[in-house]
Amino acid sequence: MKLVELCDDVGHRLSGSKGLERAVEWGVATLKADGHENVRAEPVKVPKWVRGRESLTLLEPRELPMVMLGLGGSVGTPPEGITAEVVVVKDKAELDAIGDGAKGKIVLFNYPMPPYDAEKGSRYGETVAYRVNGAAWASEKGAIAALVRSVTARSLRTPHTGGMNYGKATVKIPTAAITIEDAEMLARFCARGKKPVVKLQMEAKSEAEADSHNVIGELVGREKPDEIVIISGHLDSWDVGQGAHDDGAGVVTAMEALTTLRKLGLRPRRTIRVVLWTNEENGLAGARTYVKDHAAELNKHIAAIESDSGGTRPLGFTVEHKDAARLPAIIERLRRSLVAPIPDGGYDVRAGGSGADVGQLKDHGVACLGLRVDDSIYFDSHHTPADTVDKVNPRDLAECVAAVALAAYQIAENGWEGP
Amino acid sequence: MKLVELCDDVGHRLSGSKGLERAVEWGVATLKADGHENVRAEPVKVPKWVRGRESLTLLEPRELPMVMLGLGGSVGTPPEGITAEVVVVKDKAELDAIGDGAKGKIVLFNYPMPPYDAEKGSRYGETVAYRVNGAAWASEKGAIAALVRSVTARSLRTPHTGGMNYGKATVKIPTAAITIEDAEMLARFCARGKKPVVKLQMEAKSEAEADSHNVIGELVGREKPDEIVIISGHLDSWDVGQGAHDDGAGVVTAMEALTTLRKLGLRPRRTIRVVLWTNEENGLAGARTYVKDHAAELNKHIAAIESDSGGTRPLGFTVEHKDAARLPAIIERLRRSLVAPIPDGGYDVRAGGSGADVGQLKDHGVACLGLRVDDSIYFDSHHTPADTVDKVNPRDLAECVAAVALAAYQIAENGWEGP
Repeated sequence: MKLVELCDDVGHRLSGSKGLERAVEWGVATLKADGHENVRAEPVKVPKWVRGRESLTLLEPRELPMVMLGLGGSVGTPPEGITAEVVVVKDKAELDAIGDGAKGKIVLFNYPMPPYDAEKGSRYGETVAYRVNGAAWASEKGAIAALVRSVTARSLRTPHTGGMNYGKATVKIPTAAITIEDAEMLARFCARGKKPVVKLQMEAKSEAEADSHNVIGELVGREKPDEIVIISGHLDSWDVGQGAHDDGAGVVTAMEALTTLRKLGLRPRRTIRVVLWTNEENGLAGARTYVKDHAAELNKHIAAIESDSGGTRPLGFTVEHKDAARLPAIIERLRRSLVAPIPDGGYDVRAGGSGADVGQLKDHGVACLGLRVDDSIYFDSHHTPADTVDKVNPRDLAECVAAVALAAYQIAENGWEGP
Repeated sequence: MKLVELCDDVGHRLSGSKGLERAVEWGVATLKADGHENVRAEPVKVPKWVRGRESLTLLEPRELPMVMLGLGGSVGTPPEGITAEVVVVKDKAELDAIGDGAKGKIVLFNYPMPPYDAEKGSRYGETVAYRVNGAAWASEKGAIAALVRSVTARSLRTPHTGGMNYGKATVKIPTAAITIEDAEMLARFCARGKKPVVKLQMEAKSEAEADSHNVIGELVGREKPDEIVIISGHLDSWDVGQGAHDDGAGVVTAMEALTTLRKLGLRPRRTIRVVLWTNEENGLAGARTYVKDHAAELNKHIAAIESDSGGTRPLGFTVEHKDAARLPAIIERLRRSLVAPIPDGGYDVRAGGSGADVGQLKDHGVACLGLRVDDSIYFDSHHTPADTVDKVNPRDLAECVAAVALAAYQIAENGWEGP
């Protein structure tokens, strides 16, 4: 029900939008209604990127509107748009190989995300590199815009937005994602010797920083209330769909985990603090501001848990720690307390990246945990108009809540040191 | 390569559009280039329905643009649109049960297509009834517009258009398909006591009949050239996507089957005639005009084969005949000649509907065959912007070509009577 409220009543919520601040109000009101302590919204200045109107039209070999989504952080085009031939490359090596071939043209990176593989996972990391860096790489070669095949293995003409980064590029060129279908069509035209020409129009721009908030609520510890275990998800989303799996599911998981413990009358020794981060998607200002504002108590944060991979079936936790020597003991302890009681053999705790927000606390000696889930379908709707609440299986989400509630309770009750 | 030309170079091709007549030119030119005989375009008057601009906006409980596609044949709205509360029903029984509850409102039929089931198939028939008849049923109850959940079991916020029929409705109300995601959201709002209000704007209208053509080419029979076996698909498509599976695949299957036989030097006793029908989607004017114009030779048509279920793996043929008493012998004969030589146990010939176009020849005593294929993914992109050439596996399509070429050859060579 919380996820339905967040998704249907608030909807998407990009940093700087009214939607995000409505979500902040909803978060505060809902944590209060659930009876939590020290509920508040802590101010954060966030970057504000605005999509504006945008379009991509194939002009040659025939006129056809294409499906696209500008990438977050991109600059816009001049009002009349950018019209140029498209050069298709599969990857960076192919871009490097064409020498001056990209100069004055629009580069399309047609790098396919492989089908999901139970062993190799989603391989998001290798694929998303083109979304993040494509514009910078193309700009270096003299291209005047960059298009990127959407980061997904499945598509029904579905565009996927997401963040990008100009890095050290001296010229910032506009950049957008297109669908697998349209990327493949452009590649086919090139393969058949027909030079495709497109017109890209984007009003995208970055505006002045906006006011936002991290939302916080607590179950105050009964013996060591100043020692803290964070459970968290991020409240912001991209400006399409409902941000249901990304990361409404993480937000609701953290909130419901705290409410479940409270309803069960389980108050551990240490404080469990829900943090609903703002601005994960395009800046991490929420987590960074938290680190600054809470500098004095960071050494009392014994763990920070994040759920930001969707509300699918939980498979365990990944853990990281600044002090690599401590990590094996932490993992062993978590396995004993979290995995051993659960008969399902697939559930595990292992070393690995935790989450973009809680990762900001790692340098301060906080043990950082990420909820690991089955991500076989996550990237189908990730950052798209299709990331909607119907995609989240309530039973899977309930299992995420149970996993986070158990982990938070065990750590808050027993710490890292005891027996 | 033919399918790429039709899909990428021509694109979608609704009756009355320039795309369809470009497809006619392409069909004639391609059949000629492949060396076929008696290649021609036979004139057909087709209905012309034009979508125009259209939009659907949620106004209450919050403003949100929704994804929609008007249904083919629908009337438009007044220019200012229709703004009304949405009443959600699952099926016709629920509509009947609410009595006056639909009066002055917009009815949403939220009837879900069940997930594909190897035994029960896609269950398109029971689901599509709402797309076809929903507007008439809602109009009877005093509704002022009808929305229909898209006919699909899988969606990435994907709208599915298709034909509809006002039947005996005295008031024609505008009607459009919405996505599973948006239909579920409206249903959730209603379930939570929030009355959703939407604004529907559609410029849709029917214009004067347009000129179109069936495209024909032949491999003339060596002994009985006046006896004919038709192999066919339909050249028109809806006005979204590329009409790749529906029915570019069928068009190319028929063309390539004929070309394959010609290249192999196989000229059977009777004539094999490729027919690329026009206007299957919204009128069947192509097939009906063929029946009228070829009335004198219909008794010489010994079979008519259509492929119109997508270019996926072939599973055999369905067969129908006006004379039910003859059907078992025809099926038995086809099994002996088509199935027996193929080791794959899944391949079969059975009684069943053939195809919308060739079905027009049934009353004239022609044996009608439909190519049966694996339709487990067909309805995912059916009538959507995602019905694109990348969805068609070239190997599967090649198997369709082989299946149709073999069936056409066997029937044209051996007829129904011989040993």
